[in-house]
Amino acid sequence: MGRPTEQKATTASDPLKLVFPILLLVLQIVFVILFAFHSNYGHEPKTLNEHDLIAKISKMITATRQPAVYLPNGTIYEPTTVEDPVSVPHRGINDLYSMFQDIHVMIFIGFGFLMTFLKRYGYSAVGYNFLIAAFVLEWALLVRGYMFDFDTSTRQFPIDVERIIVADFVAAAILISFGALLGKTNPTQLIIMCIIEVALQSVNEWIGLRLFCAFDIGESMFVHVFGAYFGLAVSAVLYKTEKDDEEKEKPIYHSDLFSMIGTLFLFCFWPSFNGGVAAAGDSRLRAVVNTYISISASVLLTYICSNLFGKGKFEMVHIQNATLAGGVAIGTVADKIVYPAGALVVGSIAGSLSTVGFKYILPKLKKLKIHDTCGVNNLHGMPGLLAAIVGIILASMPAYSLHENNLLSSCFHGTHRTGLQQVGYQAATLGITLSIAIVGGLITGFILRLLENKNVLTYYDDDTYWDTPTDFHNDELENE
Amino acid sequence: MGRPTEQKATTASDPLKLVFPILLLVLQIVFVILFAFHSNYGHEPKTLNEHDLIAKISKMITATRQPAVYLPNGTIYEPTTVEDPVSVPHRGINDLYSMFQDIHVMIFIGFGFLMTFLKRYGYSAVGYNFLIAAFVLEWALLVRGYMFDFDTSTRQFPIDVERIIVADFVAAAILISFGALLGKTNPTQLIIMCIIEVALQSVNEWIGLRLFCAFDIGESMFVHVFGAYFGLAVSAVLYKTEKDDEEKEKPIYHSDLFSMIGTLFLFCFWPSFNGGVAAAGDSRLRAVVNTYISISASVLLTYICSNLFGKGKFEMVHIQNATLAGGVAIGTVADKIVYPAGALVVGSIAGSLSTVGFKYILPKLKKLKIHDTCGVNNLHGMPGLLAAIVGIILASMPAYSLHENNLLSSCFHGTHRTGLQQVGYQAATLGITLSIAIVGGLITGFILRLLENKNVLTYYDDDTYWDTPTDFHNDELENE
Amino acid sequence: MGRPTEQKATTASDPLKLVFPILLLVLQIVFVILFAFHSNYGHEPKTLNEHDLIAKISKMITATRQPAVYLPNGTIYEPTTVEDPVSVPHRGINDLYSMFQDIHVMIFIGFGFLMTFLKRYGYSAVGYNFLIAAFVLEWALLVRGYMFDFDTSTRQFPIDVERIIVADFVAAAILISFGALLGKTNPTQLIIMCIIEVALQSVNEWIGLRLFCAFDIGESMFVHVFGAYFGLAVSAVLYKTEKDDEEKEKPIYHSDLFSMIGTLFLFCFWPSFNGGVAAAGDSRLRAVVNTYISISASVLLTYICSNLFGKGKFEMVHIQNATLAGGVAIGTVADKIVYPAGALVVGSIAGSLSTVGFKYILPKLKKLKIHDTCGVNNLHGMPGLLAAIVGIILASMPAYSLHENNLLSSCFHGTHRTGLQQVGYQAATLGITLSIAIVGGLITGFILRLLENKNVLTYYDDDTYWDTPTDFHNDELENE
Repeated sequence: MGRPTEQKATTASDPLKLVFPILLLVLQIVFVILFAFHSNYGHEPKTLNEHDLIAKISKMITATRQPAVYLPNGTIYEPTTVEDPVSVPHRGINDLYSMFQDIHVMIFIGFGFLMTFLKRYGYSAVGYNFLIAAFVLEWALLVRGYMFDFDTSTRQFPIDVERIIVADFVAAAILISFGALLGKTNPTQLIIMCIIEVALQSVNEWIGLRLFCAFDIGESMFVHVFGAYFGLAVSAVLYKTEKDDEEKEKPIYHSDLFSMIGTLFLFCFWPSFNGGVAAAGDSRLRAVVNTYISISASVLLTYICSNLFGKGKFEMVHIQNATLAGGVAIGTVADKIVYPAGALVVGSIAGSLSTVGFKYILPKLKKLKIHDTCGVNNLHGMPGLLAAIVGIILASMPAYSLHENNLLSSCFHGTHRTGLQQVGYQAATLGITLSIAIVGGLITGFILRLLENKNVLTYYDDDTYWDTPTDFHNDELENE
Repeated sequence: MGRPTEQKATTASDPLKLVFPILLLVLQIVFVILFAFHSNYGHEPKTLNEHDLIAKISKMITATRQPAVYLPNGTIYEPTTVEDPVSVPHRGINDLYSMFQDIHVMIFIGFGFLMTFLKRYGYSAVGYNFLIAAFVLEWALLVRGYMFDFDTSTRQFPIDVERIIVADFVAAAILISFGALLGKTNPTQLIIMCIIEVALQSVNEWIGLRLFCAFDIGESMFVHVFGAYFGLAVSAVLYKTEKDDEEKEKPIYHSDLFSMIGTLFLFCFWPSFNGGVAAAGDSRLRAVVNTYISISASVLLTYICSNLFGKGKFEMVHIQNATLAGGVAIGTVADKIVYPAGALVVGSIAGSLSTVGFKYILPKLKKLKIHDTCGVNNLHGMPGLLAAIVGIILASMPAYSLHENNLLSSCFHGTHRTGLQQVGYQAATLGITLSIAIVGGLITGFILRLLENKNVLTYYDDDTYWDTPTDFHNDELENE
Repeated sequence: MGRPTEQKATTASDPLKLVFPILLLVLQIVFVILFAFHSNYGHEPKTLNEHDLIAKISKMITATRQPAVYLPNGTIYEPTTVEDPVSVPHRGINDLYSMFQDIHVMIFIGFGFLMTFLKRYGYSAVGYNFLIAAFVLEWALLVRGYMFDFDTSTRQFPIDVERIIVADFVAAAILISFGALLGKTNPTQLIIMCIIEVALQSVNEWIGLRLFCAFDIGESMFVHVFGAYFGLAVSAVLYKTEKDDEEKEKPIYHSDLFSMIGTLFLFCFWPSFNGGVAAAGDSRLRAVVNTYISISASVLLTYICSNLFGKGKFEMVHIQNATLAGGVAIGTVADKIVYPAGALVVGSIAGSLSTVGFKYILPKLKKLKIHDTCGVNNLHGMPGLLAAIVGIILASMPAYSLHENNLLSSCFHGTHRTGLQQVGYQAATLGITLSIAIVGGLITGFILRLLENKNVLTYYDDDTYWDTPTDFHNDELENE
């Protein structure tokens, strides 16, 4: 057990050791101040309470009781029309909460356990996932609050269920990037990355939603494409210092089973991810049905491809990841009219594409010095691009894309637009997303290099930053 | 590590190797075509939007403003009655979605992890469960669509939240059968079984619901009895080729803990399974309360029996399985008036019966050459029979069974029936369920024998069809 | 493998062996009788069905059609006012069910897996958690039914979704006490403890809610403080017979990952715990938002403190537990107006306090012969005290505490009260909670000593009461 002791010594002499707690503490204090000045609770919609409603209607009836009487003098008394006193409703806990909790589980359990496949990096996988997600929730509430919801009269932004769902979406983007970097960063680097990426992801989404008025209900561009290519760009910059430790990058039997916990929760709750903020009614039903069908199709095509590629043997890494590609690929058009058969086709292509990615593209990228630990290009990147392309194609068919529903009053382009114009804006959104993600990721990568561990032995190893139990130094986990 | 290599060679020469991917691919293409021609989205009910509702009522009031005036000539002007413009409401996301997601988790996480107890078959348990469930979702949507929901005018069937819940129910039946066969089939056989069993299960349920108008809200007959005895029948036919490998059929410490993940999610969400499609209102509340109480009672009786049988020591296989029997046993009458005490009694009997089954009946069945890997007879079969019997008894008391609520307009027997008649139809439904399950299972078993692996060394072993990590060949997992 | 056999012999000679199954069976029979005599289903609120509602309104309109006519004789016919036939609504499945299921998962998966960290006590941790929770659900329904909901005219108490949520809350309290005792009790002792603690916890909550009319929406006093100090009191009495077996009290690598499953589900669903029974509307939204923010803050402060205390290394026990302290600490005021920044501050203090507790207070308590296996003082005790103090402070500001909302018709003090009075009642509730918990725990501890195992080798070891697999006696789990 000389080696762990030796490593402890190495770590102890790390001059950056105090950076992490101090940085995080300062940020937390800043967050408290910003929340104190500018945040407030949102409001629940007045629930449609039978009691109140009938009372209101009774008044309306009473108000109309005397009128329209044919008076003895032959005239008719015409009262004023009954006014509608009700404003447009928004959505509250009863509409959104159950989907919110599904999404919350996806972020903390789904992503967290999906990444536990590395045999010596389980604490870090699930632990850093937890740290990143909790940090991003706070930071994203602030960034989104200022960027999307700031009321200049009260100088405050509201927090309600829809906003906490959105904060969870932002966390998904950052966790995807983390997947590309899994095993190669220290916690300080991760916090720095969160700060930058949340801001850039939000700017990008603001451009896409408010400026270009693109549709992307499941956030396949804003979350999946952005997160994947941002992460890959960071990884490309960090590559040089990485020493391959292929043995440590492998799973063991039980780490693969832990990972399946993540996979299956992501699978189950993906309809909530894609339908979480869809418009109530048939839009939301379509988001659920399309996702349910598309992601099932990607499961089947993953099993087909994995079996073919493995000459009769399945690979767990495919089953853990590529099975979910259908959820990503249907995301941009999940609430549109693509019909169940369309969802089935999109999911089938996604599952195949993703398995091909894991089998053939991942090793090629590694040769190009872009190392992608979790294969986020295969699960999030390429299926996200597929989603964007499906969106562009569908935008040319307004009867199916219903694209004008997305032209909110806050859209800078008015409320009318041709299908071809929408095609352009969807494409522009994809373009800007890729640009901001890649350029932002490269810059972030260079910043993170300033903070990196010089000792590459610490890669893919919990022992560097975690107190590990004695069995961690056994044969099974150590050096097969 | 000679053995795994040797096995690889064996597998590589398997002439059926390409059957799996080609069969599954062809089926997926057929599914796309069928979905394209005949499926469409269902519709969300118009949500009870206060805004719209008040607008509608305003119109109604306005329409009644002039009338009923006592005219100068002494007559009274009588307007036409206000018509009710609203059709019978159906249920949408706000009613069904949260229970749907619970059921979805039961299918993929619950069943999936419950079966991971075998020490060398964890990938297959959770992986085949995933494959089967995803395949069945698609196939069941089609079969159910054609059989139950096909609209001959539009030549389409709708897909909505209630339909995807039902597809999940069908998946449960097939996964129960899979439990009986766990470790003894190859993936091609499983897909063939899915194709046949989904069709037969749906025919049986159509007979039970539409022809016999039986009640079975938690699908204890249609899912649990059917799935268990279909699977046991298949297992009986497959038995001859099975070589006992008792060592491999055992759990290890951590595989038992993985299995408990499945158990506990099944426990928690069983009220959603039994209440998922119950009629809104008090019926649904009863389904939830009865299941909550019944399944808790089966937990307690399982601990009592396990402790007694083990002379002071609990057995994990009981805790993992028999604890859930109360959910099955209350299923047929979950939404009926059995009172909390009735649910407590039913659950207590179920937990005892199931533990007895694991301890004493399972080994006997094995001697009869019916090998039941997961003990589905004990968790699903016998408690399902108990549920059916409870249903038959309750049917004789119409004040508690409310059986006429089940006589829908689609029932071929009109909307009235005596309690005794209902007793007969409940019994007939159990009889037809057992008959179709057993005969169908036997036939399916003979078909599956055509596709079986000749090499019985491959049983209960992930190495046959999965890429396994190096620790899979360690002492702990290999040959204790 | 001599030792297990030897232990079996020891166990076999345990004279108390039959006490467990007989006691539990007798209790179950008593429960059946009590449920049969005194329980019934509650009712779902009439759902706001558009169809029924419009029919009702049509009648109202028709009823007002003839009236208010200016009659030829010059008089006006005045009909009676339209009566409101609707009673005050209560809440049903659509309001409560999704949060109920979240809480249910917290109890069975969350608490269950959180306690699996001990390397040789996983079966017991998750298994006894299951047993205790199922037992408490039944027993708490009865105790609460008689104490809070008994209708003296029908001589029955109702069971509905709100009541089963409350039974789950009670289970949480008992499971917290179990956490303090983890590894040191036999199942008979646990059942005895359940019987006593459920009764005392309910009496205490009745005093707090009905007599003192304190607010404590997330049950930080009634569940967390009570459960923690009750358990610690029991533990203090049991201590003398405990032989330190520090090696067995340690985790191994994968047991720590199982434990994280519990942590993350508790984290995700805590907003449902604190908001589950909050008043519909803005109160409930605040409960969700405050908890979401507070518990995220405790995650961050835990990472900060753990890193600082560990000189750059995180400890899993902190990450598994202290991260959740923010959920406890905001509990008492979760539905009040503390603003997001207030929640952030409370959660930050809680996370720090809890990590300090694990690092520095836990070992001190052990020296005082109060042994706290799971560290419930740190996760539930001290953060619960913090919650109570925050509640006392907030009570002095009625505009933010809205304390009069808690003065129900059932409150013995009328419906008005000053802020200062509320401060007193909040403090009194904390005082009575601590008193009943500690005195009750001490007495329970002395009772449990009558039933204790004399053989302390059985501590922290599944082998005593569970059939264990062969790998349980391997080096890794046995004696590192």
